[in-house]
Amino acid sequence: MENLKVIKIGGNVIDKPETLERFLDNFCCIAGPKILIHGGGAVATELAKKLSIEVKMVEGRRITDGSMLKLVTMVYAGLINKQLVASLQKRGCDAIGLSGVDGNTVPACRRKDEKIDWGFVGDVKSPDINTRLIDDFIRGNMVPVFCAITHDCNGSLLNTNADTMAREIAAAMSSIYNVELIYCFEKQGVLLNPDDDNSVIPLITKESFSKMKESGQVSGGMIPKLDNAFKALENGVKRVVVKHADNLLEGKKTDIILKDFDE
Amino acid sequence: MENLKVIKIGGNVIDKPETLERFLDNFCCIAGPKILIHGGGAVATELAKKLSIEVKMVEGRRITDGSMLKLVTMVYAGLINKQLVASLQKRGCDAIGLSGVDGNTVPACRRKDEKIDWGFVGDVKSPDINTRLIDDFIRGNMVPVFCAITHDCNGSLLNTNADTMAREIAAAMSSIYNVELIYCFEKQGVLLNPDDDNSVIPLITKESFSKMKESGQVSGGMIPKLDNAFKALENGVKRVVVKHADNLLEGKKTDIILKDFDE
Repeated sequence: MENLKVIKIGGNVIDKPETLERFLDNFCCIAGPKILIHGGGAVATELAKKLSIEVKMVEGRRITDGSMLKLVTMVYAGLINKQLVASLQKRGCDAIGLSGVDGNTVPACRRKDEKIDWGFVGDVKSPDINTRLIDDFIRGNMVPVFCAITHDCNGSLLNTNADTMAREIAAAMSSIYNVELIYCFEKQGVLLNPDDDNSVIPLITKESFSKMKESGQVSGGMIPKLDNAFKALENGVKRVVVKHADNLLEGKKTDIILKDFDE
Repeated sequence: MENLKVIKIGGNVIDKPETLERFLDNFCCIAGPKILIHGGGAVATELAKKLSIEVKMVEGRRITDGSMLKLVTMVYAGLINKQLVASLQKRGCDAIGLSGVDGNTVPACRRKDEKIDWGFVGDVKSPDINTRLIDDFIRGNMVPVFCAITHDCNGSLLNTNADTMAREIAAAMSSIYNVELIYCFEKQGVLLNPDDDNSVIPLITKESFSKMKESGQVSGGMIPKLDNAFKALENGVKRVVVKHADNLLEGKKTDIILKDFDE
């Protein structure tokens, strides 16, 4: 099987013009099949403030009411997606911007949760991801650029977490490719000491992750990110790394693996 | 050559939920290759008001400064495009939402005008339209749904008039298909008396259009729409009609033709 890199960037990369430009330069240097998945960032929060739409977060995830759904659709599927595609096209990279709605690439269902009403939040229907169409784009030498807007196949758009979107697409494409999933963010990797960029943990296994959670060494948004990483590995993805957007081509990183050789 | 219908809807269709639903029902009934192109509408104007972005119009066309470009990208490429695609997918129509940036389908250049600074307004580079990719979608039984956001191939998004976008795509696709271009709006056709829906002019030729302009019988936004219609016909499009969105399948219409048989 051929290799495929699925690379995810979040708001912390998108919001910094210089970091983003450098990332896109590096992204274009990657030879072979690749997919870019992006999150949102400060634009959505700022726009919500201007429009007096309340931002509600639970465990680092956005609760999406009707107004917020419109807002994130505008910002993620419109502004950020098209700006990224234009920036890639400028570099000669034949990008195509997609949401999960387009060509029914990523169907989802509205989250059912007895405790919290998440609103228009979509959980991906993993087996229904349109891997054939995504692969058609790749074979046509295009680079799919996904925002994390999905739909319920019944006319409603849904908001999906971008880390999860990346994991789901990476796992689904593993039926066709050897997939490497790369989470790029503003740190050098998973850090032993959040304030020390030199304290990158080179390797995290499922067991060491459990211990880190217990001891409180890992917390906040890093927990769902690592949960996504392990789920990806459990669903066919060959390799998952977490690294700084500047280090896309080389440099420090945290490798996430299911089991170390000793275990 | 096979037939292809290129159908354009504007804000006056998008803004009325019932009209839009009926239109989409009818649109899905059209067999064979088809492309949908949409404009903006009230959402963009309302959002501009909320964000205190000034709307500047000249001859029915929007002047697009940096803030307005972001706004129309959000509303056209984001909200409206993805909502339309979700509504079509719900009906079992395999739609794919596109801007001219995606897959470099519709490259443009920023308008140069000595009299007016149009801002980020894009004039389509007609020969560079990526007809091969658009045709790939059609041959893959998908329905391209275009908003009128284009790009300058140098990293900047551009705002293009949606009637013009429809004409350009219709003309370009004429190298592969027998193309019919259908402008759908809120009137039964071009009206002799704007207040009388029964006064539809069944046929307009280039000569009769000239006379209508001179006599002031046609004015405002109808003039650029008809200009687009004639340019389409001069560039390979086989048939252009102007009709009410409700009459997509049958009913009253104005046929635009270059010359009547008598001329």
